[in-house]
Amino acid sequence: MKITELKVRLAFVFTLMGSSLSFAAGSLNDDDVKYLSELRDKALKSDLAYQILESLTTEVGPRMAGTEGDARAVAWGQAKFKEIGFDKVWIEPVTFKQWHRGVETAQVLAPFPQPLVITALGNSIGTGEQGLKGEVIHFKTFADLQKAEAGDVNGKIVFISHKMEKTRDGSSYGQAVASRSRGAVEAAKKGAKAIVIRSIGTDSHRVPHTGNMNYQDGVSKIPAAALSNPDADLLINMLSRGKPVELGLTMTSNPGGEYTSYNVIGEIEGSEKPDEVIVIGGHLDSWDLGTGAVDDGAGVAITMAAAKIVAQGKRPKRTIRVVLWANEEQGLHGAKAYALAHKNNILNHITGAESDFGAGPIWAIDWSSTNKQEPIIDQLVSVLNSIGVAKGKAKSTGGPDLWPLRGLGMSTFSLRQDGSDYFDLHHTADDTLDKVNPEHLKQNLAVWSVFVYAVAQVEGDFGHGIDYSK
Amino acid sequence: MKITELKVRLAFVFTLMGSSLSFAAGSLNDDDVKYLSELRDKALKSDLAYQILESLTTEVGPRMAGTEGDARAVAWGQAKFKEIGFDKVWIEPVTFKQWHRGVETAQVLAPFPQPLVITALGNSIGTGEQGLKGEVIHFKTFADLQKAEAGDVNGKIVFISHKMEKTRDGSSYGQAVASRSRGAVEAAKKGAKAIVIRSIGTDSHRVPHTGNMNYQDGVSKIPAAALSNPDADLLINMLSRGKPVELGLTMTSNPGGEYTSYNVIGEIEGSEKPDEVIVIGGHLDSWDLGTGAVDDGAGVAITMAAAKIVAQGKRPKRTIRVVLWANEEQGLHGAKAYALAHKNNILNHITGAESDFGAGPIWAIDWSSTNKQEPIIDQLVSVLNSIGVAKGKAKSTGGPDLWPLRGLGMSTFSLRQDGSDYFDLHHTADDTLDKVNPEHLKQNLAVWSVFVYAVAQVEGDFGHGIDYSK
Repeated sequence: MKITELKVRLAFVFTLMGSSLSFAAGSLNDDDVKYLSELRDKALKSDLAYQILESLTTEVGPRMAGTEGDARAVAWGQAKFKEIGFDKVWIEPVTFKQWHRGVETAQVLAPFPQPLVITALGNSIGTGEQGLKGEVIHFKTFADLQKAEAGDVNGKIVFISHKMEKTRDGSSYGQAVASRSRGAVEAAKKGAKAIVIRSIGTDSHRVPHTGNMNYQDGVSKIPAAALSNPDADLLINMLSRGKPVELGLTMTSNPGGEYTSYNVIGEIEGSEKPDEVIVIGGHLDSWDLGTGAVDDGAGVAITMAAAKIVAQGKRPKRTIRVVLWANEEQGLHGAKAYALAHKNNILNHITGAESDFGAGPIWAIDWSSTNKQEPIIDQLVSVLNSIGVAKGKAKSTGGPDLWPLRGLGMSTFSLRQDGSDYFDLHHTADDTLDKVNPEHLKQNLAVWSVFVYAVAQVEGDFGHGIDYSK
Repeated sequence: MKITELKVRLAFVFTLMGSSLSFAAGSLNDDDVKYLSELRDKALKSDLAYQILESLTTEVGPRMAGTEGDARAVAWGQAKFKEIGFDKVWIEPVTFKQWHRGVETAQVLAPFPQPLVITALGNSIGTGEQGLKGEVIHFKTFADLQKAEAGDVNGKIVFISHKMEKTRDGSSYGQAVASRSRGAVEAAKKGAKAIVIRSIGTDSHRVPHTGNMNYQDGVSKIPAAALSNPDADLLINMLSRGKPVELGLTMTSNPGGEYTSYNVIGEIEGSEKPDEVIVIGGHLDSWDLGTGAVDDGAGVAITMAAAKIVAQGKRPKRTIRVVLWANEEQGLHGAKAYALAHKNNILNHITGAESDFGAGPIWAIDWSSTNKQEPIIDQLVSVLNSIGVAKGKAKSTGGPDLWPLRGLGMSTFSLRQDGSDYFDLHHTADDTLDKVNPEHLKQNLAVWSVFVYAVAQVEGDFGHGIDYSK
């Protein structure tokens, strides 16, 4: 309630101020722009982001929220911030319910007995140790399941085979992910005993993609798993014979107790306006199957390293706050806790961006709907176009962990990475360090160093109280 | 003994006959050569090989020797030969010891606890259900292990990190595979309690490569496993910190009892010399992790389909015998049983070739050391160079399952496939149908159809009693 009132008032204030201050509020002086090129070139030579990423994946590895790996990651994050030389390092609690994976096996029982490679979707209940069996009913899309008659689905195992396409911007994810996030509820409403989906992923390896799924009050909970892409292809080929296909599924996944993890925060203090902060970061948790190199070790490493690169040079006016967000994967728990804890200081949050789309090169910078961000974007692009960065669109999401702060009216930028290969690895055992191109990481580091210096240094701000619903 | 005498006598006979019959003995007439082009073009339009491969991988899938999948594959092979319309179909027994895989898990226990993805090497003993623990000692190559002092290795877990390089002809395999086949013996001689090797494979996925390993009488048996390539990279990064790295390893693999499988054989009878046979085929068994699409479903499918393509047209003079070899993977058991059963008819085996290097396009044809094979090679290449096939070298191995027949003096050809990607998949869970390019399979089918018609039709033979030791 308070927040809403604040947003309305701020929107009014900034509307009044907007036009007269538009130049001063949004752009750097010539010396600063020149300095951005120095920062860019320095970062392009630095392997600091790779070193941090190697450290996180090697010394911590899998760090699913609520596990021992999570606790080790929190300790690692604090130690790494200190080792690198951040001015302030602290943690803020984030409490959520644990989820345990357990055993996960599946096999075709008839007509062609074969093992299948599956993984339980995050949050799924188990089948019990005895497992369950059922005839498969196949839908090509989530929409087809929605249209199905309950009589056809009742007592069966739903299989959705929708295949995600590769895109640079990840736009195919939103459509494909419905079968993962909403499939179990839709299938259960029609009486299904379980659901297996084709992995939400673009690879062709026997490494299924996990990821969070949801239940709904009043709808019975059924087990939900993902097949690897080759296993989904196999199941389709079996079904094409026209004979009933019977699956066996055993999953001992189960919910755990309440757990408190932490957002791990490090600051490089601003020289003139230390209370005004630029929020950057990546999420510290990963899924459990891989070592979380691209999701989101890369984001953690790039943003920690960028703040350090900036700190090694001229100190910008504002404070750079790097937040390693807790438990993004299971519902933005760290991001929500942060927004709740800091809502009364929201006006001190000048702007922000998250790196959470892998380790591909950045090709554009987007901004949120305030036109106060455009002048600095033009200056950034003038420095970064030589390394492949173009001016994007007024479509910034800021990254998942900034959604709660956007909800409080904070502006965001999006440093958009090439995600063509991201969904080959996303949420799989294959998300490991070898998949990261060190040269791409340097490009990311250069863009982030330039970006964060610029927005920490610029006179004026980017507006607040933005209505993202427009 | 008998065989050796036979070889000596035959070598003498053929040396006498060789020169005067060299043209008639080795080449086709113009009509036949013209017909080869028709066969090529017909095969290039056929998806029969893909259909057979889809059937084998879908309806049988994993078929490790001695498993239920093996028995299903034998039934499938007989049924498929009959369905396709082979003139004769039969099975010949092949007896060997089973090996069971069981559970296989590994983890770094210290200093950075993380799970590792491993697979037991074929034939390895287990660790017992309680598992074992030990400090890792790292060798970059098998040769380094050979040079090591027993005192340094004693009581530890040996890790060999040699990385196999990609090559078109697979020549890097021979060098890399020593750590798999001989590593356990060498490590055990120096007192190691287990060995883990980097997978003998060229991919970067969390799918470790299994494959057979050997023990040696008088040397204690220790468990042997392969790490996926990303896991081997991770272990190296951990070791680079200079602290002791402790591994935990649990494998319940164990030897089984005696099992009888079968070579499955189908014939297209020759029109004039039905007792003279051309032996082609692939091996029917696979490892258990994948569905054996490229190893060696492709070879099975290509050679079955090629015989069928030939049978649909003009019937060649000699019989085409397609042998689906039993248990190649665990020691050429089917090939050895066949050679033993047919050794007294070895002179009726005019020549042979196996397809067992995946599903990449064929780029050359090799021959064995008799120059009687060269005239037909020149004719084959004149028909096949338009689809990428060149004249190879006098270096034919014939394929693993023809080694015992080579040992009896039979000539061989090698239709050499591009294996650049073969070791990405070889012996992994990733060996699945989606990895096979249907167009490459058509090219293979065209080459094999032309080849097998030509050698079944040609006047004279290719010599016998070849001394492969030269």
